[in-house]
Amino acid sequence: MNWYFNEGKDGDIVISSRVRFARNIQGFNYTNNLNKTKLEEILNIFENNKQLLKKYGLKLLRLENMDDITKASLVEKHLISIELLKSKASAILINDEENICIMLNEEDHLRIQVFSAGFEIYNIYEILNNIDDEFGKCITYQYNKNYGYLTSCPSNVGTGFRCSVMLHLPALQLSRKLNKIIDIANNLNINIRGAYGEGTNSSGHMYQISNKITIGVTEKEILDNINNIVSQLITLEREERNNLLKNKLQLEDNINRKYGILSNAKIISSQEINEYISYIRMGIYMKLIDKIDIKKLNKIGIYTKVACLQKYFGKVLSPNERDVYRARVIKDILEEK
Amino acid sequence: MNWYFNEGKDGDIVISSRVRFARNIQGFNYTNNLNKTKLEEILNIFENNKQLLKKYGLKLLRLENMDDITKASLVEKHLISIELLKSKASAILINDEENICIMLNEEDHLRIQVFSAGFEIYNIYEILNNIDDEFGKCITYQYNKNYGYLTSCPSNVGTGFRCSVMLHLPALQLSRKLNKIIDIANNLNINIRGAYGEGTNSSGHMYQISNKITIGVTEKEILDNINNIVSQLITLEREERNNLLKNKLQLEDNINRKYGILSNAKIISSQEINEYISYIRMGIYMKLIDKIDIKKLNKIGIYTKVACLQKYFGKVLSPNERDVYRARVIKDILEEK
Repeated sequence: MNWYFNEGKDGDIVISSRVRFARNIQGFNYTNNLNKTKLEEILNIFENNKQLLKKYGLKLLRLENMDDITKASLVEKHLISIELLKSKASAILINDEENICIMLNEEDHLRIQVFSAGFEIYNIYEILNNIDDEFGKCITYQYNKNYGYLTSCPSNVGTGFRCSVMLHLPALQLSRKLNKIIDIANNLNINIRGAYGEGTNSSGHMYQISNKITIGVTEKEILDNINNIVSQLITLEREERNNLLKNKLQLEDNINRKYGILSNAKIISSQEINEYISYIRMGIYMKLIDKIDIKKLNKIGIYTKVACLQKYFGKVLSPNERDVYRARVIKDILEEK
Repeated sequence: MNWYFNEGKDGDIVISSRVRFARNIQGFNYTNNLNKTKLEEILNIFENNKQLLKKYGLKLLRLENMDDITKASLVEKHLISIELLKSKASAILINDEENICIMLNEEDHLRIQVFSAGFEIYNIYEILNNIDDEFGKCITYQYNKNYGYLTSCPSNVGTGFRCSVMLHLPALQLSRKLNKIIDIANNLNINIRGAYGEGTNSSGHMYQISNKITIGVTEKEILDNINNIVSQLITLEREERNNLLKNKLQLEDNINRKYGILSNAKIISSQEINEYISYIRMGIYMKLIDKIDIKKLNKIGIYTKVACLQKYFGKVLSPNERDVYRARVIKDILEEK
């Protein structure tokens, strides 16, 4: 099972955790200064190192061999960045569970990423560190003893480490308490961003928390800082959900109606889905709805995205068709045993 | 099974048919000029005629022995009028199927009514006629050879006959073609009235067609006239529903979403129900929804009415409670095998 269908620790609030290192290989310019031949050379280093790939169950997949829908579906699942698509010769090293996904020839030569459902930053950091060490035995990273790891963009220099956590904060958003929290977070060198749409507003009530600074701090400090703010947000969101229970029946009605529409509509847009999934997710954890479990909801969340939807049905769909097929995939998933 | 849960002929458009005779008994003033003792005397005539009641499986139920919720539920099912509740001593003669319901001491001494699901005016007229004849053997009706049967209100003098048909006309209402039809009907001595709310507008798209005139025409002519206009309305409504299929998918989506809300809400008002049931009813007959059949929908329609709901749960409910229990009875009915 792919990691993103699962639920993890503190799954009522934390959707997923992600850690990554930015690394570059000695003897090569940064990717934006490499021609296709040199970029291919980098890919070949990894393709030829069967032993290293086998250790983590990784396969090398070149983006030039993927159709557009497959590439877009990887972006939708946050496994790769849009940047990677622009490279003249890029690839990913990915395992079956898809919780390890290393981008090759994105902004940096390597973007080693490890993912998990739920709140698992320390555990996945261990895995990341291990991969980083093993890769470091086969290639020599660009490293400066004063600055640390060197990266294409100065914002990643030092540790090259980014830790991000995706949070579901419907109650804090509905109670308008989130803006104050975002201000505080900014002073703690933490970014909080709405995961859909512009700015901090988020139709699906999803927020991504990540560290701003990668230099002058240790990875341990970054993890502790993220752990600290996320733990507080979890507590605050849980309190706020308890407050919502003052109008329990109205909330239960609202959530179940949204499920009723989600499960019966014949045409449905992605904006609608985001809103419904958010309420139903909260409802499942608040025990206000029992007609669907979190794994099916996660599955609906993934397969109703524009590219994942087309990948599911194996064909290109116009925007109008997508709204119809989106309703069909929901039906399929709900009918699964 | 009570007749009103069934579906009858032309059930896609015709909910129910009803015929009634207004009759008064010789030797008694009209009910509004009778004291309680005299009114009781009338009830006793029927109570003591076991043979007559047995012939049609009728039981005499005195309204003074009924609680308020039971009385109100009979009004909601259109089996009795609100007028009957105001009488100092009234009763109904009713059979198990409830398709025969004779009001005693309403505006007239007898209001003999026969009901059916669907479009069945000629068949139920036969039954009505038969009952009228049999009752006429036991009591002497007030009759004048010039005017016909005499009634308390002049509008019923003559035949004392009223034939009414409940029609479901969502497509004609949505296309705004109904107003013109109502004008034409008025010139044909036919009343068309919205069955809910004021005037001709009807949130549930329900319309009652009945004859205006009871004198100077035969019962056969009244029936033929009603048959004629109802048949035309059936044809027009079916045509208009076909027109709606130009946007089949949107209609299917709309209907199924309404079903989704109806079947998942935890709080639901009666106005909402009327609208949803109307669309779902049309959807069932247009084969745009297959998750519910017409009998369950009819059952939901009945048991979500204010008094029927309280009768179902066997307790008095405040308006807020009713909205919650309404959602529960829907769940119960949908879960029935």
